[in-house]
Amino acid sequence: MKKFKAGLFGLGVVGSGVYKALQQNEKYGVSIEKIAVKNIEKERNLELPNGILTTEADEILDNTDLDIIIELINDPKEAFSIVKKAFERGKSVVSANKKMVALYHKEILELREKHGVKFFYEGAVCGSVPILRLLDQHYKSDQVKSIKAIANGTCNFILSKMVGENQDYATALKDAQELGFAELDPYSDVSGEDTRFKLSIMIYHAFGVFVHPNEIPLHGINHLDEHIKDFAQKHHLKLKLVGEAQQQNGKITAKVEPQLVNESHDFYTIENEYNGIVVDAEFSGEQFVKGKGAGSFPTALAVLSNLKDLKYDLAIAKSLVKKEIEFSNKSKREIYFISGFENEISGLTILDQEEKYYIVNTDFNRLINLKQEHLNLYWVKIPQDIFNKIKNHEVLI
Amino acid sequence: MKKFKAGLFGLGVVGSGVYKALQQNEKYGVSIEKIAVKNIEKERNLELPNGILTTEADEILDNTDLDIIIELINDPKEAFSIVKKAFERGKSVVSANKKMVALYHKEILELREKHGVKFFYEGAVCGSVPILRLLDQHYKSDQVKSIKAIANGTCNFILSKMVGENQDYATALKDAQELGFAELDPYSDVSGEDTRFKLSIMIYHAFGVFVHPNEIPLHGINHLDEHIKDFAQKHHLKLKLVGEAQQQNGKITAKVEPQLVNESHDFYTIENEYNGIVVDAEFSGEQFVKGKGAGSFPTALAVLSNLKDLKYDLAIAKSLVKKEIEFSNKSKREIYFISGFENEISGLTILDQEEKYYIVNTDFNRLINLKQEHLNLYWVKIPQDIFNKIKNHEVLI
Repeated sequence: MKKFKAGLFGLGVVGSGVYKALQQNEKYGVSIEKIAVKNIEKERNLELPNGILTTEADEILDNTDLDIIIELINDPKEAFSIVKKAFERGKSVVSANKKMVALYHKEILELREKHGVKFFYEGAVCGSVPILRLLDQHYKSDQVKSIKAIANGTCNFILSKMVGENQDYATALKDAQELGFAELDPYSDVSGEDTRFKLSIMIYHAFGVFVHPNEIPLHGINHLDEHIKDFAQKHHLKLKLVGEAQQQNGKITAKVEPQLVNESHDFYTIENEYNGIVVDAEFSGEQFVKGKGAGSFPTALAVLSNLKDLKYDLAIAKSLVKKEIEFSNKSKREIYFISGFENEISGLTILDQEEKYYIVNTDFNRLINLKQEHLNLYWVKIPQDIFNKIKNHEVLI
Repeated sequence: MKKFKAGLFGLGVVGSGVYKALQQNEKYGVSIEKIAVKNIEKERNLELPNGILTTEADEILDNTDLDIIIELINDPKEAFSIVKKAFERGKSVVSANKKMVALYHKEILELREKHGVKFFYEGAVCGSVPILRLLDQHYKSDQVKSIKAIANGTCNFILSKMVGENQDYATALKDAQELGFAELDPYSDVSGEDTRFKLSIMIYHAFGVFVHPNEIPLHGINHLDEHIKDFAQKHHLKLKLVGEAQQQNGKITAKVEPQLVNESHDFYTIENEYNGIVVDAEFSGEQFVKGKGAGSFPTALAVLSNLKDLKYDLAIAKSLVKKEIEFSNKSKREIYFISGFENEISGLTILDQEEKYYIVNTDFNRLINLKQEHLNLYWVKIPQDIFNKIKNHEVLI
């Protein structure tokens, strides 16, 4: 089988993992010939051949000897420009850049068609969890009804600490930062934005519809206070940030928000940096996949498996855009725990209340509106079955 | 894209599901032109075109119009003969016959190579759970260290009833039979044989080694009595039949036996007809997949996804046989709960004991030997971490 020559963009955590694996093991049949980095002089814990590093993107892109581009930089705009140029030069690309894929999804896939190249990006969604592969291949013969994901390890770590170890939000965040699980600026993670990028990518592969991340309503975990923590502990529930999308009557709805889960839910055992996805489909019913959502080697593995796909000339079933299916940002009424308000909130269907929180029956959009007046307001979805159980056990406060 | 014409062998539970799906939905691009059955006159809950049924296998195999054979009969020997003939006539085959694949694995894959055809069999292992796809594609870039599976819904149903609802083995089996979860002759399921077929197939895809099912030591669930049930309940543990294989220093070991799991284990939430598999690999770490392991539509979906693979000419990374890796039937010492003996058993390292059971440190082969003298002896593995927890909590009886 032909040996591929690749150019690598970015030599960070994932890039180094990919480089080391390809270097150490002939079996991959891919050799990295040139690596584009911002700073050649930077100290790196890697043995590199002389002259392999460059700061000039075009030195890689214009090199007709290279078949494949592995794109692993951070900046989405710069990454998109690299991918575009690679496609124009007939090179296939493997990427792990969730932000780039989410923001330019439609354009990239159109360009891929136009130039007849391949573009794989398993590493962009949930690290080593092969969810895009499954949606593209296994589920292409089924009809996906819904997809629910814990897709952000930082949030999951913080929520594990808060409910499991009784920490407050600020301490849990600080711990996460000290352990390297959270960035110094945690906004993208705790706001739910990162989960939304991944959800937007999965929606295309699950339903054949492009939904720009900005169209998906989101609510993060950065306003949670002790009331929800106490509530969760009291009822033996765990708190998870969940991105979910479902298809019903030709309409897709999606959102990202914190949610309570009980011990019978697959998400209950997902702790710390693990990610997990439940796919519900017509024929297969509910399936659950769980694995490491981030980290050097787990994400590198996703990249390596995509390189193998190129090598075996894997023609993945294309997610044809389904024009008959539309995205709708209407939200349906569900049961929510709400807290973080200063004064009473009027005009809500209250199912139960304490001084500092309500259990209400309302919808996401209404909560978003309320948040404009009550800036610290936060909400956590209580799935119907959990609410029923709490009620039947008569332990609802 | 070309529309494929297929011949179907077997119109049972899975066959009917596949036929209905292909009939109702153009998107699959596969039409079934002829169906071989044993009895044409049998009443079927299906609308079938006149003349589509035949009792003559050759009417399908010799028809040069048909590109694909879908093999869904029960008898492994007959199925193998059909597959062989199909290959000889240049036809690719999709099958869900675990017993045939497990018993003739090496021969079939050699014949596949010889005749340059394709042969997919996702439905043979754990119904809708896409484990072969993942091992062939995703994990082909990783190094699998171990694979552990709950692969038999009948056993899982019985064990759920015994520990969760306090039934005895006989009642749980009877319930399973009445609900259609167990065959009238449950031997293949409760003896662990069925799990062993599936494990043997997975071993090839995980490690590149053919291990005949008969080489894998097994111990079923058909001798469990109330002592293990009480023990599991007392310590909040669940009981599962687990097939497992690991690679260490170029040796593969494998076995099928009941095992205790606690609430932090992924298997804890697998109830009734669900199957689940934990794969531990070098780069990706531990991943877990869970889904419906049997049933008309879940298994049909596996078949349909394989038909899509043929349609998209999916060239799956081949599991080259690794000559440097050997199978070893040596077993290592582990911690076991043993019961079902009449008189005391001597010569064992006993960690704890009650009148009716011991907790011992020993190995599978030793237990197999002991069973020749003590016919009702049974054992259940207690993983080290669970044993430690029980000990630390000082609740060990």
